[in-house]
Amino acid sequence: MLDKLKKEVYEANMLLPKYNLITFTWGNVSGIDREKNLVVIKPSGVEYDVLKADDMVVVDLDGNVVEGKLNPSSDTATHVELYKAFPEISGVVHTHSPWAVSFAQAGLDIPAAGTTHGDYFYGSIPTTRQMKREEIETAYEKNTGSVIIETFRNRQIDPAQVPGVLVNDHGPFTWGTSAVNAVHNAVVLEQISEMTYHTLQLNPHGITMDQALLDKHYLRKHGKNAYYGQKKETK
Amino acid sequence: MLDKLKKEVYEANMLLPKYNLITFTWGNVSGIDREKNLVVIKPSGVEYDVLKADDMVVVDLDGNVVEGKLNPSSDTATHVELYKAFPEISGVVHTHSPWAVSFAQAGLDIPAAGTTHGDYFYGSIPTTRQMKREEIETAYEKNTGSVIIETFRNRQIDPAQVPGVLVNDHGPFTWGTSAVNAVHNAVVLEQISEMTYHTLQLNPHGITMDQALLDKHYLRKHGKNAYYGQKKETK
Amino acid sequence: MLDKLKKEVYEANMLLPKYNLITFTWGNVSGIDREKNLVVIKPSGVEYDVLKADDMVVVDLDGNVVEGKLNPSSDTATHVELYKAFPEISGVVHTHSPWAVSFAQAGLDIPAAGTTHGDYFYGSIPTTRQMKREEIETAYEKNTGSVIIETFRNRQIDPAQVPGVLVNDHGPFTWGTSAVNAVHNAVVLEQISEMTYHTLQLNPHGITMDQALLDKHYLRKHGKNAYYGQKKETK
Amino acid sequence: MLDKLKKEVYEANMLLPKYNLITFTWGNVSGIDREKNLVVIKPSGVEYDVLKADDMVVVDLDGNVVEGKLNPSSDTATHVELYKAFPEISGVVHTHSPWAVSFAQAGLDIPAAGTTHGDYFYGSIPTTRQMKREEIETAYEKNTGSVIIETFRNRQIDPAQVPGVLVNDHGPFTWGTSAVNAVHNAVVLEQISEMTYHTLQLNPHGITMDQALLDKHYLRKHGKNAYYGQKKETK
Repeated sequence: MLDKLKKEVYEANMLLPKYNLITFTWGNVSGIDREKNLVVIKPSGVEYDVLKADDMVVVDLDGNVVEGKLNPSSDTATHVELYKAFPEISGVVHTHSPWAVSFAQAGLDIPAAGTTHGDYFYGSIPTTRQMKREEIETAYEKNTGSVIIETFRNRQIDPAQVPGVLVNDHGPFTWGTSAVNAVHNAVVLEQISEMTYHTLQLNPHGITMDQALLDKHYLRKHGKNAYYGQKKETK
Repeated sequence: MLDKLKKEVYEANMLLPKYNLITFTWGNVSGIDREKNLVVIKPSGVEYDVLKADDMVVVDLDGNVVEGKLNPSSDTATHVELYKAFPEISGVVHTHSPWAVSFAQAGLDIPAAGTTHGDYFYGSIPTTRQMKREEIETAYEKNTGSVIIETFRNRQIDPAQVPGVLVNDHGPFTWGTSAVNAVHNAVVLEQISEMTYHTLQLNPHGITMDQALLDKHYLRKHGKNAYYGQKKETK
Repeated sequence: MLDKLKKEVYEANMLLPKYNLITFTWGNVSGIDREKNLVVIKPSGVEYDVLKADDMVVVDLDGNVVEGKLNPSSDTATHVELYKAFPEISGVVHTHSPWAVSFAQAGLDIPAAGTTHGDYFYGSIPTTRQMKREEIETAYEKNTGSVIIETFRNRQIDPAQVPGVLVNDHGPFTWGTSAVNAVHNAVVLEQISEMTYHTLQLNPHGITMDQALLDKHYLRKHGKNAYYGQKKETK
Repeated sequence: MLDKLKKEVYEANMLLPKYNLITFTWGNVSGIDREKNLVVIKPSGVEYDVLKADDMVVVDLDGNVVEGKLNPSSDTATHVELYKAFPEISGVVHTHSPWAVSFAQAGLDIPAAGTTHGDYFYGSIPTTRQMKREEIETAYEKNTGSVIIETFRNRQIDPAQVPGVLVNDHGPFTWGTSAVNAVHNAVVLEQISEMTYHTLQLNPHGITMDQALLDKHYLRKHGKNAYYGQKKETK
């Protein structure tokens, strides 16, 4: 069942240690089959060096396991919420990558400080509000998804143009057009977190990129007038 | 004698270079056989690339060598004190991992700034008071254990729930349900030291994780209602 | 056509991942044949692990492709501008190396803080002014070159003595006597960015290297009285 | 000639890339035969991956080449000055390791902030005064040695107990009982520079290690009452 997607999601999970985004099992990647409305996700707490494509768990959009011998990631309900609210995405990643977590713990957005940011994220990467006691105590992982969705709706951010978020006091979720693309965005998020941290230390008032430069860099890689790479719309 | 425990302690010691927790021989791991009241510990000052399981030294709870050709770690008396005071632990680790040492040298606790911390440590990781001249000059390593124990008792911290400490002006000790689990906690301590350092630089007043979130994350991985991983009580 | 230069430019491009200067495809190296006035440059958006010498693209000094199946780097027009304005250079590198980007995003020059800097860069490494809206919207990559050239002319900096620049809110370009030498300067720029960042954090008023020390270090490696290395004029 | 010492100095040089202390050729190690008063040192500007034991250059205590096809390190005169002034040392290392350079460029001593420091350096690691114009312009490398020696004499620091220094606006020199031991001290210096940097950022007034703790740690590894390791006086 969904063997091709399982292989793709497995391979995307294995990119997390490759790109130094995780310690132990602190991360998970999923992908969705939009026709069948089924999500393939990493099992919970399994070490990467023993993980196999066949260990991937299939869940439906209520979060129920449809196939798989292992428990799905404890964050499955967050992934499912994101797939339901953001129909344009087909992959989701959660990590505790250290630079992004540093901003999440500080409760700060990552401002668009330069063109590296603009090449992938079309504006500030938001940090959610802190979750309320009742949101934490009941259906915590589902509510983590809800607070992300609320952030994008209230702040009128397009999740296709800003493919990531920091959950306050927790860490990053990213997404994309596929599981691998979502990992790609997780790598970029970590890298720009590191650079913008140092920029802020050098010059706390120095984040002043012009909107025209952000437009230029985002749009030279995305949309119908993109011209970066070997064909239109590469990412 | 204790061949299984020696192998386990040896393998736990070899995780220190694997996880980049040590420079040269600046670390040691021990494990205890609680039935025989014997501790197995790394020999002092032996390089990791020549260390063998058979080099592990067996000491009793007075710190006397019971078996072994080599001198035990110079920190043996600290390990022994911890085993005597904290009956729930079966492994102890000491390193000079750089981010944790930075907090120890600054004399600062590591506050619980986010869920990565909460997944493993149920509250602030304390830094001991500075040791007194007389504690340093006589039975220094034993007194290092005593000041750790005093910290947990005076501040009413449960060592099973906060499996680590920073010794002031020195560095981290962690412990756990086994030698390997104690190393696991040493890795986590180093990682959260790094992230919380950066959080404090971004926002010195930004450490505001809600107790409910700390409860949620700690208890979803620990205790009878844990649901992370593939079975109850994995760590 | 230009097989030797293609091989050299290919090998120089492959040094970028070797020296950890790039993430994904965020970098490009070119070299010029000054007799034929032809530039060899990396194709746009091709991953380093599949890149071949034969993929290199040949362009003329108007930026037109003369040979090659792939699109040249999207930054080609910047490289070409630099070759036209700075006749003494034969290689150009662009990366998003994180420490240099941190200064670029902060809009700050990298001051000459010590002898490591002085061994390669004879004075501050300038950051350009921010580009104007009209410069961004039309012929952006060409204008990126123009603003670099303006910086060196207005501030009377000799590009042979300061072989690199930070483009404001973007990142570093370096150059040199060959493609490999330009990569060498990119490595140095990243390293001194890191060290000078930390120097500024330790002591914001502590950048006080004497001109005589800068002269000594630069001139012991460069020019007719150089005495570093095994022959005159090694770099 | 001096084949054993050449091999030892060669191997000590090869530890510099192993321990990530150098970029390109920015470092050199020497050793001395105290009976013959001859120094063996790395040749200038030779890449580590082509360096051979046989490339090592032999110089006398006037800095004249006694044997060797290549030019000796451009810093040879500094090494020679140190050997003449500090008869207890038999190895010298110079690097541009980035954390130590950060302090050197800031013109700050590295204070003894914790036991890692105290295990190897018995007190603050001094930074020299800035060199004067005339010291730089004539016999620069020899005068670099002189300003180091002046620092230790004026501040009454014992070079056997504090086996390293930062040359202002330049970088670290370390020394030791052998070439390998001097490299060992260079590794430690870099590590404690990193940790103490972060300590100072966390708590600028937090460097308060008690002299008794410094005494304890230094003397448990050095001198006649040392008890660390497998025999007396290991380092």
